[in-house]
Amino acid sequence: MDRLDSQFEFIREIDGLKKISRQTYLSDGSRKENDTEHSWHLALMAVLLSEYANENVDLLRVITMVLVHDIVELDAGDTYAYDDAGNATKREREVAAADRIFNILPADQAKYLRNLWDEFEEDSTPEARFAHTLDHVQPVMLNDASGAKAWKEHAIKLSQVLKRNSSTAKGSEKLWEYTYNNFIEPNVKTGSIEKDIDYKLK
Amino acid sequence: MDRLDSQFEFIREIDGLKKISRQTYLSDGSRKENDTEHSWHLALMAVLLSEYANENVDLLRVITMVLVHDIVELDAGDTYAYDDAGNATKREREVAAADRIFNILPADQAKYLRNLWDEFEEDSTPEARFAHTLDHVQPVMLNDASGAKAWKEHAIKLSQVLKRNSSTAKGSEKLWEYTYNNFIEPNVKTGSIEKDIDYKLK
Repeated sequence: MDRLDSQFEFIREIDGLKKISRQTYLSDGSRKENDTEHSWHLALMAVLLSEYANENVDLLRVITMVLVHDIVELDAGDTYAYDDAGNATKREREVAAADRIFNILPADQAKYLRNLWDEFEEDSTPEARFAHTLDHVQPVMLNDASGAKAWKEHAIKLSQVLKRNSSTAKGSEKLWEYTYNNFIEPNVKTGSIEKDIDYKLK
Repeated sequence: MDRLDSQFEFIREIDGLKKISRQTYLSDGSRKENDTEHSWHLALMAVLLSEYANENVDLLRVITMVLVHDIVELDAGDTYAYDDAGNATKREREVAAADRIFNILPADQAKYLRNLWDEFEEDSTPEARFAHTLDHVQPVMLNDASGAKAWKEHAIKLSQVLKRNSSTAKGSEKLWEYTYNNFIEPNVKTGSIEKDIDYKLK
């Protein structure tokens, strides 16, 4: 039963991810969401939106990738997309976390999930590119739904939103176009996102 | 863009599931978990534990099933496993919820997810049987990890735990055996679950 012991140790360990808060509010603005809520949302978005991926993707690989993509935050914490200082040390903190957490599992499964996480980080495959698209679109959608609550709190500018989303179209042109037109531009028009530069969709 | 509008309407709608609380506590006992945290946990358990399914299962179908299995609780609420009155009206409330919520989606995707939910409810396929095993094992694991907090609050008896788990072995004999030996029996021994009947694993 050693194998099952390791598997359940991992499954219990990652329960802690339910307490890692992100900066994004729920759609009703009542509180911030946590990593596991975010990952569940991305997994279902993958099921529903993979038809818009630029390249053919293996849906099971995309889903598994988004289910585990934030597990390193158990040790490394959530680094806000617009926190420049935090992002400078993010990679180092997250690699150390990956080394510890995935290795709780039996070697074959540790390798499988670690490889998927590395692939996501390297953004080197159609699945990783599409997973990143979802990971970027979901908080933008929630920010819009919550009345731009997190954007306003941090006085986010359009240039920051665009920088954060500089690779969103690489996974799906269609989803980036929809996201810009429906979740970003309306908030620029109302001033919820400060328009510090000009931008036009290609 | 009508199709994408419907898809994002659904994706925003199910954000509300992050506020549907279950009776099970997180492993550290600090608060109860919600439906989306639970579903994320089941999806990763499916990835890691499908090798123990009694029958061959299509992992993508199992994962998609567990991701959506509680969506009806958005309208119907969470019915505690040991709430007999609630369980008497559960089916009717959940079918009405399924009729409304899945139909927010474009017809093809509404049908696809509704069929998966029906399949789960009917418990009629290897995937549904294994999904139920995970759905039963996960709260038992968390109850054990949290020092039997929810069990003690509700003064749960062994006969109730066994009744709730009467079909757990149908999806995986191995996981039921592990669950009984590691998460249930130790709590019977300490009195955290009241031993009102005798039980021996086959």
